[in-house]
Amino acid sequence: MVGCENSKKSDSDSNKEKCLSDDVINLDQGDPTVFQEYWMKKKDKCTVVIPAWDLMSYFSDTTNVCWFLEPELEKAIKALHGAIGNAATEERYIVVGTGSSQLCQAALFALSSLFEVKPVSIVAAVPYYSTYVEEASYVQSSLYKWEGDARTFDKNGPYIELVTSPNNPDGTMREPVVNRREDGKVIHDFAYYWPHYTPITRRQDHDLMLFTFSKITGHAGSRIGWALVKDVEVAKKMVQYLTINSIGVSKESQTRATTILNELTKTCRTQSESFFEYGYEKMKSRWERLREVVESGDAFTLPNYPQAFCNFFGKTISTSPAFAWLGYKEERDLGSLLKEKKVLTRGGDRCGCDKKYVRVSMLSRDNDFDVFIHRLATIKDLKCNQP
Amino acid sequence: MVGCENSKKSDSDSNKEKCLSDDVINLDQGDPTVFQEYWMKKKDKCTVVIPAWDLMSYFSDTTNVCWFLEPELEKAIKALHGAIGNAATEERYIVVGTGSSQLCQAALFALSSLFEVKPVSIVAAVPYYSTYVEEASYVQSSLYKWEGDARTFDKNGPYIELVTSPNNPDGTMREPVVNRREDGKVIHDFAYYWPHYTPITRRQDHDLMLFTFSKITGHAGSRIGWALVKDVEVAKKMVQYLTINSIGVSKESQTRATTILNELTKTCRTQSESFFEYGYEKMKSRWERLREVVESGDAFTLPNYPQAFCNFFGKTISTSPAFAWLGYKEERDLGSLLKEKKVLTRGGDRCGCDKKYVRVSMLSRDNDFDVFIHRLATIKDLKCNQP
Repeated sequence: MVGCENSKKSDSDSNKEKCLSDDVINLDQGDPTVFQEYWMKKKDKCTVVIPAWDLMSYFSDTTNVCWFLEPELEKAIKALHGAIGNAATEERYIVVGTGSSQLCQAALFALSSLFEVKPVSIVAAVPYYSTYVEEASYVQSSLYKWEGDARTFDKNGPYIELVTSPNNPDGTMREPVVNRREDGKVIHDFAYYWPHYTPITRRQDHDLMLFTFSKITGHAGSRIGWALVKDVEVAKKMVQYLTINSIGVSKESQTRATTILNELTKTCRTQSESFFEYGYEKMKSRWERLREVVESGDAFTLPNYPQAFCNFFGKTISTSPAFAWLGYKEERDLGSLLKEKKVLTRGGDRCGCDKKYVRVSMLSRDNDFDVFIHRLATIKDLKCNQP
Repeated sequence: MVGCENSKKSDSDSNKEKCLSDDVINLDQGDPTVFQEYWMKKKDKCTVVIPAWDLMSYFSDTTNVCWFLEPELEKAIKALHGAIGNAATEERYIVVGTGSSQLCQAALFALSSLFEVKPVSIVAAVPYYSTYVEEASYVQSSLYKWEGDARTFDKNGPYIELVTSPNNPDGTMREPVVNRREDGKVIHDFAYYWPHYTPITRRQDHDLMLFTFSKITGHAGSRIGWALVKDVEVAKKMVQYLTINSIGVSKESQTRATTILNELTKTCRTQSESFFEYGYEKMKSRWERLREVVESGDAFTLPNYPQAFCNFFGKTISTSPAFAWLGYKEERDLGSLLKEKKVLTRGGDRCGCDKKYVRVSMLSRDNDFDVFIHRLATIKDLKCNQP
């Protein structure tokens, strides 16, 4: 079933052309355009209309710790978590950010302020989201310092562990690994803890949890993320970061996210309309196609995920991560090999691992995914044909 | 002419109630809600309509250095600067940001990378925009360090001077003061260099110029700013900052800014419709009322601005800054005095000056401005009545 049959005829390049063409396919970034098809079918259902005189002020609610958070977005976030059952929102402050990247940096700023000794060590278990390295390093803050793999971390003193679950890049469920409670804090990044990617096995209930609009619905261009924060002082410090960094968050994006999140909540139990049903089937089908190519040869490896009972779907389901953590069985640079085939991926070395692994976005448009599967099959065959 | 006659009847509190009421008036932040009235009169003229399937990708134009800048916004920015004649856009890269605060930090990051010696000193001439201090200090970067007043700056080594013109808080036209070309860089913040605030006397043509949507039209909630950057390496570094900091800028806000900036350009020569004509008259009228109160007593001081020929309006006009730099003739804390009268302002000490000065936003809603003028008159009278 390798091929081009899934592509949308309405796209400007026909799929056949793409398969035969020489175009570079960018699966390095996780641009979640896969879900656009769902929203096109919605037609004008979640269209937002914003008159010029609206949303002009910096302020949304001066009585809220997060004074730039639109009250309707706060309600929409709580309603969605309630409907999906993936995170507790009670007795928590919601902090909105320009994507969860900005919030992660706000959290590093806030949590490091809790410790007297600086810089606070920042760690994450390998393989980690490569952008964490950049986020923790680029401005060379004296407040915190990137220290790499959490599993080999043995420095004394305060630390912050970044725990992404399901993990980016390898899709595994994660728990903290350092566990020195007296001088450690954890940022739980739940960007992908939604039922189209992974079974919802528990309602997460941690001190600081990050979520992002991009990876739920595919609206990456909106740059909306949120944090659920237990400690008011941490929430205030995060708001301080966001105030200095960008004086709040786009009101237009907040308004659009509100409309779209409310639609998710409203339709999540209506099988024919539910975004999560659609997303689950879509991701499952892509993973089946990928596994079929990988398993039909002996060049590549993929992680195996246990099936689990999903509290949201009420049945046992499989895991279909947003990224494939693709390995090569021989010792060579898989990223370079794929680049020769004009498929751009993120090298395992950027995630603290070996170059024989790459992170491949599973969230591209159908055309690009089809071309990727086609080219991967070619490499697999090439290898099998070698003496 | 002190009083309440200018307020909008449609506001929920009637103006009379506000004048008599005990409400706290916040003129600390420069929330530019003054211009909402103009946009309400436009009715649905610049309404944006965004379907759910649109603007989903992180990317706007992968061939552009600023890959998250919507091409239509780039055109709109160039067209507006062309029509107003306030800045050169030729042979420059446009970098869009989540407000100009984020861009200022991107510029500090980019410009400090040009020097080997770190930290690079950051300076601005007193009185300076208080937020610069926070922007240059909060993450305790090892790349740059806030060093305060540019006029008394005498450290050796590389520096970056922030030049805001017209200046926030005091409305004066500014030039760099350090002028050590071999090891200095300048960020020109032209947030207020628009004809409703100040005569446009020249087309600015510097290496790195910042502008913000908020302070042109009053759309602070959109969080859109842009930089005009000559050096491609500086532009790339700024884009790197924005990529790590927030993976780009809200597409919804960019779309709305495009629509509204295009309307400004289209109507800027039609007197009855021009936003700049409206804004100029509005600001001029507020300044006349403020000067009337100040000059009718001897408690307060205000800067005087020379009239100048405005190339845009084609006539000699006065200056009506977005903030009033209000001084008290006696040595006392003017911010506290006004706070007793429930008027919040920004203390001069936060701008590197004496507490006998405060920065007062001139951009509030009519009601709040009326109440401010009313309370200021009361203080003035109080002082005159003292033995």
